[in-house]
Amino acid sequence: MFTSYLEIRAIQKKLEPFIHNTPILTSSTFNSISGCDAYFKCENFQRMGAFKMRGALNAILNLSGNDRRKGVTTHSSGNFAQAVALSSKIMGISATVIMPSSAPSVKKNAVRGYGANIIECEPTLASREKTTEEFIRKTGAILLHPSDQKDVIDGNSSAALELLDSIPDLEAIIAPVGGGGLLAGTALAAKAVNPAVQVFAGEPLGADDAYRSLKLGSIQPCINPQTMADGLKTQLGKHNFPIIQKYVTEIIRVEEVEIINAMKWIWERMKIIIEPSSAVAVAAILKEQKWFKGKKTGIILSGGNVEMDKLPF
Amino acid sequence: MFTSYLEIRAIQKKLEPFIHNTPILTSSTFNSISGCDAYFKCENFQRMGAFKMRGALNAILNLSGNDRRKGVTTHSSGNFAQAVALSSKIMGISATVIMPSSAPSVKKNAVRGYGANIIECEPTLASREKTTEEFIRKTGAILLHPSDQKDVIDGNSSAALELLDSIPDLEAIIAPVGGGGLLAGTALAAKAVNPAVQVFAGEPLGADDAYRSLKLGSIQPCINPQTMADGLKTQLGKHNFPIIQKYVTEIIRVEEVEIINAMKWIWERMKIIIEPSSAVAVAAILKEQKWFKGKKTGIILSGGNVEMDKLPF
Repeated sequence: MFTSYLEIRAIQKKLEPFIHNTPILTSSTFNSISGCDAYFKCENFQRMGAFKMRGALNAILNLSGNDRRKGVTTHSSGNFAQAVALSSKIMGISATVIMPSSAPSVKKNAVRGYGANIIECEPTLASREKTTEEFIRKTGAILLHPSDQKDVIDGNSSAALELLDSIPDLEAIIAPVGGGGLLAGTALAAKAVNPAVQVFAGEPLGADDAYRSLKLGSIQPCINPQTMADGLKTQLGKHNFPIIQKYVTEIIRVEEVEIINAMKWIWERMKIIIEPSSAVAVAAILKEQKWFKGKKTGIILSGGNVEMDKLPF
Repeated sequence: MFTSYLEIRAIQKKLEPFIHNTPILTSSTFNSISGCDAYFKCENFQRMGAFKMRGALNAILNLSGNDRRKGVTTHSSGNFAQAVALSSKIMGISATVIMPSSAPSVKKNAVRGYGANIIECEPTLASREKTTEEFIRKTGAILLHPSDQKDVIDGNSSAALELLDSIPDLEAIIAPVGGGGLLAGTALAAKAVNPAVQVFAGEPLGADDAYRSLKLGSIQPCINPQTMADGLKTQLGKHNFPIIQKYVTEIIRVEEVEIINAMKWIWERMKIIIEPSSAVAVAAILKEQKWFKGKKTGIILSGGNVEMDKLPF
């Protein structure tokens, strides 16, 4: 059974004191070029700059007192590392992040800035898993998964729930899909509030395992993904795929140039910073307008953590 | 006599249906690094992307029916050109902007996009003035000045008034200063609401005519200004200087590297796009913290129109 409306609402209430109820922006120019009536849920303004805060915090809040004493760990070089670090700081527990030695120092500094420990590993999957296992064996730390864990998915659902609280008559909602944790959470909240809401995702063409998985009816591997949307290079998981399979109408694939154009458009016209992963959802609406024509459409802008010296424009 | 509180309030009410009451953002991280309690008034989210909309629209609303039929003109390659174009479109009157042939095509397109005519001139002051005079002689069009005109200053005051409506106990307020129209409008509103509010400005060191004018007690020329903050290269004027002289406590000069750092900080941490001119006010607070320590401080983020392919980082 999927998480129910009452459970999702209870989670949102539990997270509320610790996170931002992020603003919802509109743009009449976007509406006129896309043909839909768009509501942008700005998780780029969330604490640590991305929705990941919601899932990480929910997972940590759900730990027993005994598990909290053991501390938490994750392997990530992206937003989830910062989310675990900040959530742990808020809850006063110890956090250790396994990061590839090749991770940019700006990301390492952000994680350290929130008070978490970093253990460096080689930039390979094997080294990452081995390092994580060793750390857990030695310390008993609790492993948090960036996208494929029930608590994380449930926590992520609170973004869409807040959006629906403000715009209850949404007809469509779209999120980017990478590991699947945001899309599954978004779908859970949308369908729990109103089963008539259609759920969509945007996905980079160069990392389209979710698209292929949905079409083929089973989880397809994400091999050698190629996209500037780093956050979406991850593999769909067994906890979130059934939710996506049940609830998602269509996954729209977009090319890199479409991601760049959408990102630039949002920066120039809406004056907000979004990361490439967020631009994927925007690009999807602009690409396949038929799905959204005339509909009140919610867009989860997933985050705004961008390395300013590596812009694609 | 300066414009009174009741007049400023009436202007704000008159503009209200046509402009955005822009959001006010806060950042706990900014507060901890600056030592003040900062409220960012986001005119980067204003229509056409800058506060200039307020002054241009007020000037046009104040025209007689006969003058409206003549149409309006201005010479500008910056935000004021777009503001006049959009305000004229809203009011259904004709607008003609004199722009140097060297102006970037993105700016020309924005002005044309709002339905205004463009007359190109040589990129010299002499050519600009001659072209404008000829156009006015031929058509009788009404000239609008970007910063040194009472109606424009009065219209600009509505940004600070909205900010004070939300945060009535501000103790300090700061705006960037270039031509002086925003600073004078900000000072008018702040002092009209509460004479105890201290008014400050940020100014680029390479275009510090306002600083020198305030220190010497008379308008000093702005010769060969050098700064990335294009919007602040303009000359202080005879309508706004008396207001600045009476009301402004201090003008804080900042170097180019401080402007870049402040702009990057706001982009990276607050996830909003501001233009270099806006970053000048932020840099000023970070540079001379003694003026703002522990104070509720309003910051007018003047605009967000940036050429994305010419970023300083």
